[in-house]
Formats: sequence, C-alpha cells, structure tokens
Amino acid sequence: MAINSIFSFLTPKETKFFPMLNEMSDKLIEASLLLHKLLISTNRTESKEIYKQIKEVETSGDEQINLIFSELNDTFITPFDREDIHNLCERLDDVLDLINSSGKRIIIYNPKQIPEKTIQMSNLIIKGSQAVKAMVGELHTITKKPFYALDQCNHLHSIEHEADDVYEHFVMELFENEVDSIELIKIKEIMQELEKATDKLDAVGKIIKTIIVKYA
Amino acid sequence: MAINSIFSFLTPKETKFFPMLNEMSDKLIEASLLLHKLLISTNRTESKEIYKQIKEVETSGDEQINLIFSELNDTFITPFDREDIHNLCERLDDVLDLINSSGKRIIIYNPKQIPEKTIQMSNLIIKGSQAVKAMVGELHTITKKPFYALDQCNHLHSIEHEADDVYEHFVMELFENEVDSIELIKIKEIMQELEKATDKLDAVGKIIKTIIVKYA
Amino acid sequence: MAINSIFSFLTPKETKFFPMLNEMSDKLIEASLLLHKLLISTNRTESKEIYKQIKEVETSGDEQINLIFSELNDTFITPFDREDIHNLCERLDDVLDLINSSGKRIIIYNPKQIPEKTIQMSNLIIKGSQAVKAMVGELHTITKKPFYALDQCNHLHSIEHEADDVYEHFVMELFENEVDSIELIKIKEIMQELEKATDKLDAVGKIIKTIIVKYA
Repeated sequence: MAINSIFSFLTPKETKFFPMLNEMSDKLIEASLLLHKLLISTNRTESKEIYKQIKEVETSGDEQINLIFSELNDTFITPFDREDIHNLCERLDDVLDLINSSGKRIIIYNPKQIPEKTIQMSNLIIKGSQAVKAMVGELHTITKKPFYALDQCNHLHSIEHEADDVYEHFVMELFENEVDSIELIKIKEIMQELEKATDKLDAVGKIIKTIIVKYA
Repeated sequence: MAINSIFSFLTPKETKFFPMLNEMSDKLIEASLLLHKLLISTNRTESKEIYKQIKEVETSGDEQINLIFSELNDTFITPFDREDIHNLCERLDDVLDLINSSGKRIIIYNPKQIPEKTIQMSNLIIKGSQAVKAMVGELHTITKKPFYALDQCNHLHSIEHEADDVYEHFVMELFENEVDSIELIKIKEIMQELEKATDKLDAVGKIIKTIIVKYA
Repeated sequence: MAINSIFSFLTPKETKFFPMLNEMSDKLIEASLLLHKLLISTNRTESKEIYKQIKEVETSGDEQINLIFSELNDTFITPFDREDIHNLCERLDDVLDLINSSGKRIIIYNPKQIPEKTIQMSNLIIKGSQAVKAMVGELHTITKKPFYALDQCNHLHSIEHEADDVYEHFVMELFENEVDSIELIKIKEIMQELEKATDKLDAVGKIIKTIIVKYA
C-alpha cells in the first residue's frame, strides 16, 4: 500500500472526532435550554417532565462519551493526543452532570419559590454552552487559527466571574433575609449547583487553552 | 539467560497484583458489612466501636494502595498498563473513603433516628462490593473471558440506578415531612454520602469496562 | 555542539522549576496567614479587605501555575517527570483554592460568632503551609537526601490527623448545642472547608512521597 493510501485510510478515522465532539456540545446547549425552561416553569407536572428530558440528554451524553472513548482506543492517529481529547470529553461531561444535578435538586427539593437570580444564572449557563459549541466547532483549525477560540475561552472565564459575583451577592442576601432554614438549604444548594456548572464551563475553556498552547 | 527463564523471573512480579487487588476488594466487603452493622446498632457505645473498626479498615486500605503503588513503580512488566491499575486502585479507595465518611457522619451527627432507607442503601453497598470482588477475582482472565465481568459491571450500574431512585424519593419525602431542620441536615447528608458510595462502586465497574475494551 | 554544551544549555531550563515552585509555596504561607488574620478580625470592613487580599493571592497562584504549565510544555528535560510536577502544582493549587473558599464563606455567610476552634484550625493550616515550603525548598536534592522531606510529609500527615480530630469533636458539639439552625449551617460549612484545606496539605505531602519513592 502506498503511503498516500495509508493516509486516506487513516484520515476518516481522525476526522470522526470533530463531529462527535460537536454533537456533544449540542447536548450542552440542549440541556442548558431545558434547565432554563425548568426554572421558569410554574407547574409541577410540567417541571417533572422537563427534568426527565434533562436526564435523557445527560444519559445520551454519557453514551456519546463512551462512543468517543472506544473510538480513541481503536484509533492510532488522532488529531491531538488521546489524553487531550479524553480530558476535553470529561470536562464536557462534567457540565452535563452539573446541569442535571441542578435540575434534579429543583425537582426533589421543590422549593416554595424559584428566585429570579437562578434564572439569571441559567442564562449564563446557556451563554457558556454556546461559547463551548463555538470553540468545539473550530477545533479542526484551532492550532492554525487560535484567536477566535481564545476569545471564547476568555468569554467563558468572564462568564464564570460574573456567575461568581451573582452567587456571592445572592447567598449573602439569602443568609441575611431568609428565616425559613429549610427553604434556605434548598435554595442555597440549587444556586451552588448552578454556580458549579459555570465553573465546569470555564474548565472546558481552560482545557482548550491548554490544547492551543500545546499544539500552536 | 533463556527467554523462558526471563519469563519465569518476571511472572511472579506480574501476578502479585491480582492477590493484592483481591485483598483490597475484601476490605470493601468488610467495610460495607460494618457500615450495615453500624446503621442497625441502637447503642451509642457500640456504634462508636463499630465506626472505629470501619476507620481501621479504611486506614489499612490506604496502606494496601500504597503497597500496590510502590510495587507498580518497581515492576517493569505489569499485566495491564500501570495507569489502569493505578486508576482501578484509586476508584477502590474512593469506595472505602465514602463508606468511612458515611460512618463518620453517623457518629458525629448522631441523628435521633436512623431511617429504614439508609439500611436499604447499605444493602446496595454490600451487593456492589460483592460484585466488585467477583470482577477483581476474574481480572487475570478478563481479556479472554470478559463476559462474566461485563455482567458484574452492568449489575453495578443497575445498583447505582436503584440507589439513585431510593435517594431521590427519600429526599423528596424528607423535605416534605421533616420539620426539624437540624435533623433534616443530618439525615440528608448521611443519605447523600451513602448514595455517593454507590456512585463510586459504579465507577469501579466503569474502569473495569474500560480495561476490558482496551485489552479485548 | 558538544554534549557538554548541550547540557549547559539545558540545565537553566530545568532549574527554573525549583524557584517557580518555591514562589508557589510562599503564596500558601501568605494566604494561610491572611486567613488567620481574617478569622480573628472583628470588623466587617476590615474582614472584607482581608478576604480581597486572599482572593488576590489565589488569583496570582493560578497565574503562577499557568506559568509553570507553559514552561513544562516548552521544556524537554525536566528534573522529574512532567506529570509529577503537574500533579504537584495541582495539589498546591488545591490548597490555595480551599483557603480562598474558607475565606469566602466567612464573608458571604457572616456568622454571628467565629468559634475559637476555627482559629486553631487556621494555625494548623499555617503549620502545614510551612512544612510544604520546607519540602519544596529541598526538591532539588530530594532524591539524594530524602529524609528531611519525608519528615515533613509525616508532619503534614499528623497535622491532618489533628485537624480531623478537632473537626469531629467540634461538629459533634455543634450539633449537640447549636439551636439556631442557620448559624449551624454557616459554622459547619466554614469548619468543613478549613478541614478540607488540611486534607489538601496532606495530599501535597503524599505527592512528594510518591516522587521520593519513584526517584530514590
């Protein structure tokens, strides 16, 4: 077999990863939009239905990750180090997990009121998921044209900072004003989980930054 | 030295890992049985004594892991990649840690009542530990006969699902019915820790699945 | 180029890591002293100012870690495996994160009283940070003269044990005596975060022990 045909044989394998990672980032957007829908829902039956959908997205995300992992094992040449794709997948999975656990807490704690600030937080999660999708969509040219992706990394970092501020001010006020300790526990944990989701989105940005630095 | 004698020289080193990992999985069963005993104990002095035993198992687990890690450093040929055994050990250690921290919370929070559902949870942890022992016992032939181990992986995954359900329904009811917020905090955290232990058991299954996929 | 001059060209790169890691361990001491200052502060405005300084140290620690990581990518010969320095950095970063999150909780929860035991805990964190600095200062000769560093590892482990005891007894008493559930939540979480900081200090010791075992 000529060198050329070896490469044409290998290339399809390599380039599989990009659409697979793209699909994964679509799931992040889907889950974050559902989370927003859950937070503004005022009907318990509807809420439970929306959470079921979030759970389904999370489960399909797990399956997607497993697919990518078994591809990684079978593929001898990958666009980046196996380890980098592995880490990126785990960070993407973390985001889905946190969106799911935020949704789950809303359902099982069933707080009397959903504070406005949680919706603000879910908007930040949507924005962050969109930034992740934008970056992942550029992965195939990231080492040659890193500037757009680096912009998105910085954007994710500033989203995380904003979420941190929202969280801190909110919890400070919660402890000052909430007298019902059980409601306080519920709301505090839901907000904490939402804030962690923005941390994990920032962690995706950090991994991509590492990849850019490594291969640029 | 003939090739054969080289192998006979190396083999003992390699096969050391299997009994060492077996001993580690015995500790999981021992700790999970003690946890069950702690949850049904109605005598505070006895409870403290049982927790002391759990702590001892956890400490001896740490030592076992250290032994395996230093073996790994000294051994040039291992049955699997060094990294896989390393990851497996860390996951086994996570289970022991969670069993220990569940037990610790029972002792230091000292809740007025231990709900029936925590005992149901500890039964799931026992079942999970037994599945882990069964898998670890097959590690030496796992790449040739993976089916039994894969069954156990699926079993661990369904245990984790069941534990998830038990946890979710329990916490939903707890928030609906418990009016003493301090008791609620205690019970909720103890249940959360027990549920995490089943997550970590499932994580052991996932690692073993990865190993099977990699070497099959 | 002669072999010798290749080495003299490479050596400066290698030895960069030691002063960089030294600076990082200085940040641990700085942050832990600020945390102590925050815990004994009785003035809210002053407390907020001190926390701002902790946050600054944590941010500068993140930058330092990034510097070391990009050095690692550029450097072909490092004194230890890239991975070991990477792990060590992540553990050092964990300590700073926990000191920061302890400080943050003090500010955003604003408990009515800061219990004496939290100050005892911060003293253990200072001692632990000093032990880390002592070890990191010996890294360049650690494989030849490991005994001093091993002593510090054991010292860190006994600090972690002491912190565990302080934490357990404190939380047991807190649940027995505190009737204000919201204050209980605040104090419990602050203590938990302080205790986790001592865990992470111990984890630094464990990493260094692993390095010693590996290269000795």
